[in-house]
Amino acid sequence: MPYFDAASSAPLHPVARQALQASLDEGWADPARLYREGRRARLLLDAAREAAADAVGCRPDELVFTPSGTRAIHTGISGALAGRRRVGSHLVVSAVEHSAVLHAAEGRPVTEVPVDRWGAVSPGVFGQALREDTALACLQSANHEVGTEQPVAEVAEACRAAGVPLLVDAAQSLGWGPVAGDWSLLTASAHKWGGPAGVGLLAVRKGVRFASQHPADERESGRAPGFENIPAIVAAAASLRAVRDGAREEARRLRALVDRIRASVPELVPDVEVVGDPVRRLPHLVTFSCLYVDGETVLHELDRAGFSVSSGSSCTSSTLTPSHVLRAMGVLSEGNVRVSLPPGTQEADVDRFLEILPGVIADVRGRLGAPVSPGASAGSASLVVDALGRRCPVPVIELAKVIGDVEVGGTVTVLADDEAARLDIPAWCEMRDQEYVGESPVERGTAYVVRRRT
Amino acid sequence: MPYFDAASSAPLHPVARQALQASLDEGWADPARLYREGRRARLLLDAAREAAADAVGCRPDELVFTPSGTRAIHTGISGALAGRRRVGSHLVVSAVEHSAVLHAAEGRPVTEVPVDRWGAVSPGVFGQALREDTALACLQSANHEVGTEQPVAEVAEACRAAGVPLLVDAAQSLGWGPVAGDWSLLTASAHKWGGPAGVGLLAVRKGVRFASQHPADERESGRAPGFENIPAIVAAAASLRAVRDGAREEARRLRALVDRIRASVPELVPDVEVVGDPVRRLPHLVTFSCLYVDGETVLHELDRAGFSVSSGSSCTSSTLTPSHVLRAMGVLSEGNVRVSLPPGTQEADVDRFLEILPGVIADVRGRLGAPVSPGASAGSASLVVDALGRRCPVPVIELAKVIGDVEVGGTVTVLADDEAARLDIPAWCEMRDQEYVGESPVERGTAYVVRRRT
Repeated sequence: MPYFDAASSAPLHPVARQALQASLDEGWADPARLYREGRRARLLLDAAREAAADAVGCRPDELVFTPSGTRAIHTGISGALAGRRRVGSHLVVSAVEHSAVLHAAEGRPVTEVPVDRWGAVSPGVFGQALREDTALACLQSANHEVGTEQPVAEVAEACRAAGVPLLVDAAQSLGWGPVAGDWSLLTASAHKWGGPAGVGLLAVRKGVRFASQHPADERESGRAPGFENIPAIVAAAASLRAVRDGAREEARRLRALVDRIRASVPELVPDVEVVGDPVRRLPHLVTFSCLYVDGETVLHELDRAGFSVSSGSSCTSSTLTPSHVLRAMGVLSEGNVRVSLPPGTQEADVDRFLEILPGVIADVRGRLGAPVSPGASAGSASLVVDALGRRCPVPVIELAKVIGDVEVGGTVTVLADDEAARLDIPAWCEMRDQEYVGESPVERGTAYVVRRRT
Repeated sequence: MPYFDAASSAPLHPVARQALQASLDEGWADPARLYREGRRARLLLDAAREAAADAVGCRPDELVFTPSGTRAIHTGISGALAGRRRVGSHLVVSAVEHSAVLHAAEGRPVTEVPVDRWGAVSPGVFGQALREDTALACLQSANHEVGTEQPVAEVAEACRAAGVPLLVDAAQSLGWGPVAGDWSLLTASAHKWGGPAGVGLLAVRKGVRFASQHPADERESGRAPGFENIPAIVAAAASLRAVRDGAREEARRLRALVDRIRASVPELVPDVEVVGDPVRRLPHLVTFSCLYVDGETVLHELDRAGFSVSSGSSCTSSTLTPSHVLRAMGVLSEGNVRVSLPPGTQEADVDRFLEILPGVIADVRGRLGAPVSPGASAGSASLVVDALGRRCPVPVIELAKVIGDVEVGGTVTVLADDEAARLDIPAWCEMRDQEYVGESPVERGTAYVVRRRT
């Protein structure tokens, strides 16, 4: 059964499993104790730290193990901010950071650096956001939803010039290689590269001002309180080394499979937008959005067909809002599908995915009454479609159904209260070459105005 | 090789190992995802929560899994304090809580409730410490260094009456049974009962005001951010159930072994004080202190003889201060040895420990030149011993060497700058039936005055 959601969590790597099992017998004692069981645990912990630091590209004493990538981010941001309290409390982050970064930044003065339609920040724009009172900047190495790589090295240079430390969230990329550039702090998560759950990494370069905000604790340099999870740490370090050993070859192989998906989906499925940078991207991840379908049903149908994928559509989020990443990119969010291939994915599974996908999308569209082709006849000068109370993708479907009923130059006004419409109606216009005029508030929702161009 | 430090960390229980290995294949995916791998992970997580809640004695929706017992304490204290911000920020804790509790309380107004010579608080005294502005009270179920059980049910009643929530740190006792009484919050740590590292428990009763101080996160009711460590959680819950099944019988067996140690050590080794409550105590833990030896050397010699134990002596702490628990109890800290037997400990191993211990202590005493018996001859009216710059146990050894050189009613003044002397000189006086007069500051240290009584 093909699992295509490695970006959420990768299946345990065989090396991680072996290392975990081997160290259950040797790594359960308290490494702070001086008796033999403690000394054995300490040796395992020290060796794991050396191996992980080597893979990160830092000194062992710059690296601590945290209970997760999320906790590494929380600790890294709060500690770096506290360390530069005197400078200020302003944060600069990209608009497409992981929610763990954005949530950790809440309640502080934050500048979100916008991204282009591919999802990348511009180093120049990022640099301009740095202020006198900026305590910390955060930039992911690559985006978790669309795979776009960020210009970390250039941004790190801009941060150095401004004297601002840069925290790089490397959760999605660390298995593929070290992060280039002169970063100050780095975070990662072992279960993303096939390590076990329960292990994150936090590297803080020597010389970076850092004040842990945890209660005092002697473990992990005071940066990660609580008893060390040594068997999992050993497994994390061993599997990082193992995936790195095969990373170049596996990246080449998966990149070819992803290229095939990127090229085939728009050929096989009408009204699809592939999002994210086509070149500067993670090798194993591709995201596309399909007009006139809801992501939840697509995920459900793909699961029934044996494929596990994820989605940034509003209907798949607990808050019923589209992914903030797709929103920041200004791309279509409805019918969004993220495919992220774990190492070892077979070509035949990708082939089968491409075989069944068109039927799945066509089925869902059929059930929702999506328009097959835009109407050709011209009619009135303007129409109003009331989609208040209807969820994504209905507002866009209703718009597409009637656009042919107004004359060229005429307008369709869609009334909607679903948050996804704000993103998807303009995105539909761009895909369909229609003019998006703008939005204005109405009672109980928003009016989106579209002018028929063709 | 007998490992006698279960109170630090217990070897992995066979059930924990089996459960961990079995769930590595089923529990690696994101339980928030709706595809089959996610649903399987969610099922495992839900079942583990039910089992753990059953063992704790709470509802599943009152229990979250944290990355460690320490993190459960940190989150529990900060969340409960924030939830009662309007009432005040005052904390009441026992003086012998785990350092994780005391460190989490730092920087707030705290009342430390004293303990008696056995290490227990008095419910009446605890209740009197509760104030109008007390936001939270904390009391361990049993002490981690001396094994004394606290009167949790009575203290919980006093807290209820005062409208103050009580957090119980059950790290040392949860494997032996549920915590009695009407507590509000409870914390525990899986590796203490033979579960894996990486799992703590935090229970918060419905109706208790609680405001998580972590950045927003959807996992674990917002109380434990970061990807859930499901295989370890499954192993923790399964092993808790397993140890509970055998707890009654194993407690009876280990209590008999500990009783033998409690009775034999003072018979076999002169100048020993067994500390902690002889009856109301954990079944597997006993602590004693030996005059005229340093804990570090004793630990080292016991390790060489194959026994892993720990110590609250100042020389075994990174801060060179005696354990705050022994200090609060006012008992001897030098030559302190904690023995905590893991389940399954063999009688023969305890016998061998009792065989070798007298020789180990005698050797260390011999090397340090400890007095074999107090001098009998009487001499001058007063003497001054300069032990400035000398570490524990030297000041007490020097005192013991010369006490026989002053006449009955005469005094010995010990000049010392080692923090342990403040605890150990009065404790020596009590053990030796000499009169402790008091202390006064001198240049570079403290003068401790002892009057010869016998």
